[in-house]
Order: sequence, then structure tokens, then C-alpha cells
Amino acid sequence: MTKLPSSLQKLINEFSRLPGIGPKTAQRLAFYLLKKDNIDIDSLSSAVANLKQNVTFCSICHNMVETDPCQTCLDPKRDHGLICVVEEPLDALAIDKTGNFQGTFHVLGGVLNPLEGIGPEHLKIDSLIERAKGPVEVREIIIATNPSLEGETTAMHLLKILKQEAPRVVVSRIARGLPMGGDLEYADDITLTRAMEGRREI
Amino acid sequence: MTKLPSSLQKLINEFSRLPGIGPKTAQRLAFYLLKKDNIDIDSLSSAVANLKQNVTFCSICHNMVETDPCQTCLDPKRDHGLICVVEEPLDALAIDKTGNFQGTFHVLGGVLNPLEGIGPEHLKIDSLIERAKGPVEVREIIIATNPSLEGETTAMHLLKILKQEAPRVVVSRIARGLPMGGDLEYADDITLTRAMEGRREI
Repeated sequence: MTKLPSSLQKLINEFSRLPGIGPKTAQRLAFYLLKKDNIDIDSLSSAVANLKQNVTFCSICHNMVETDPCQTCLDPKRDHGLICVVEEPLDALAIDKTGNFQGTFHVLGGVLNPLEGIGPEHLKIDSLIERAKGPVEVREIIIATNPSLEGETTAMHLLKILKQEAPRVVVSRIARGLPMGGDLEYADDITLTRAMEGRREI
Repeated sequence: MTKLPSSLQKLINEFSRLPGIGPKTAQRLAFYLLKKDNIDIDSLSSAVANLKQNVTFCSICHNMVETDPCQTCLDPKRDHGLICVVEEPLDALAIDKTGNFQGTFHVLGGVLNPLEGIGPEHLKIDSLIERAKGPVEVREIIIATNPSLEGETTAMHLLKILKQEAPRVVVSRIARGLPMGGDLEYADDITLTRAMEGRREI
């Protein structure tokens, strides 16, 4: 039986365990690395090994950052009266990358998902309410959870609690509608319904 | 500006450099690893670091193996009179996995590609001719390069040289035709032409 060298096979196995990487892709990646210099290989190896170094969570916004509190929460140029609530750190990064949002973030760390046993106590909801009450005066909280079943449920839950606990804060939800470059013909019913509901006078 | 921790960003950058992995996939992989135990992370890191350990090439078949000569070339149960010529180590592995080939392999290490400056001198063609001439009597050489333009050119080149240098050896080419589960309607012209040419009486 023709066999690959064990070190190569081991890396193929390791790559195969990553999400979205099947055995063929894992083989391709491993062979690609084999042809690379030792410097490139060491660089990847140490990046993996050092991954968790200096990774911490901001005690204010719960984003994944290097220093606590994070630079965004400390930045005096940002609008601390405007909080954008997102599910995960990558969502905050995506919104920040647009360059059009000058407020701060609040990372929930997930969404309500009763099937997976994730209830309000598993998310950073209490600290959001603390911030809403705040010493810093919060004008508006934008709920930017994903437009999925769980994201919508979480948004409704947050709205309910915030209305009770901090009634003076405006709570808004990001618009749902057709994405840029989207096609009416191929849009699903819910997206179309939301797009119609969210129409604006021009 | 919201920024990811540098160690996380570094791994995302490293992953992005791998073939077929874009920035979004790299982010997903890095965040997946972040949620993993340190044991899993160390395991991947060391697999990358140790990749080139014990990887060598068989001096007979030029396959990528752990010992030289490789186990396939030393195996007395295999048919050493039958050589299957492939482009890369993974091709040999794929053929061997079928379990229906009991001969030996010869890994060319690529295909002729004038545009990329790869000529016959860059491939393990000389040693194939040595093997064809003997001392072990070779009955048949199966050329199993890919059915691509370069693969076909390489096959033609090998046929020409082998006919000159070792005229008694039968040179064959793997069949080209419709793959199992393939659909006539969607097959391209060349595949259909080859399938017609390669028809067999049943």
C-alpha cells in the first residue's frame, strides 16, 4: 500500500478537522505548504501556536481585543451615546470597516437559541442594560443581530427588556431588505416582505 | 478603529495566504480555532512545524515517502514489470487507493509546460527510461498523466522516447471517457470524442 509520509498525513488530518475543509482540500493545502520555504511554514506554525496570546475581552463592550478596556471604548472621538449591539466580534469588525459608524459596540457573544440551550443568561445582556442605564448617557441602541430566526428573536427580547429597564433610550433595528446587487426576481418572500415594509419616501 | 487582537489578525493573514482560502474563510478558521482547546491548537501548530520531518523521495519511483527506497518499490508482492507513470504523489495515492492496481509507480514531478518553462529535463524522465531498460524486466508502462493539454503532451513525449529507447515495452494510456455518474448531455466535446474513440465491444 502506497502511503504518504506520516508527518504529511498528520497535517492533512489536522487540516481536515477545520470547518469547511474536506480531505481533498486538506491534501491540497498540505502539499502547497510542502513546496514552501521553512520560513513560511514556521510563520504559520507559530501564528497558530500564539493564537491565544494577548487575546482578551473588553469588560465594557465584550469585544475580542488586545487590551481591556478596548481602544474603541476608550476613544473620545467615538459617540458613546450610540451603541450597536452585535452577535459576534466579526460583526462589529464588519460594521466598523464600513467607516460610517462612529458609535461604540456591544458584543452579545451569540444569540438566543432554545434548541441549543442558549438563554438570556448566556449572553451579555445584563451588562448592556447597565450601559443603557449608564453613567454615560445613551441615546440610541441599534440592534444589529443577524436577520435570522434567532437574530430576530434576540432583537425582540432585547427590545422588550430595554423598554422596561431604560425606557428613554431609543431602540432601533438595522434595515432588512434587498442587498445591493440583489435581484427582486430571486429574493425570498421574507426579504421581499421586509423590503416592502421598510420602504421609505424618496 | 476597531481592531482584532494582533495574534488573531496574524493567523488570519497566514491562513489567507493558503490557496483557495480567502479573507472570510481565514477569519472563520481562526475564530473556530480560538474556541478550541489548547491541545487542539498545539496539535495543528506542531503538525505544521514538523511537516517536512521524514519526508523524502524514493530514488526509484520518486514518490514522496518516508523511507528510500519506498515500501511500494521494495514490496515483493507487487508487479515490478508494470509501471504506472503519474504527475504527482497524490495521483499515485489515488490510483493505489482503488486497490485494483498491483504494479509500481513512477512520479514525474509535473508535466511538460513550455509556457512555464518546464521541459523534459525538469521531469523524472531519464530515470523512467533507465527503469524501462532494466535490470528488472518491465512489460508495460501505463501513462496516467492527467487528461489535460499538458498531460496529453507529456504522454505523447514519453511514448516517443520510450519507443526509441525501450521498444519492447508496451506503452499504454489510461482510458479517457465519461466518468461514472457523468451525463452525456453535459459532457464536453473532447470527452465525448474520446469516449467514442475508446469504445469497446461488449
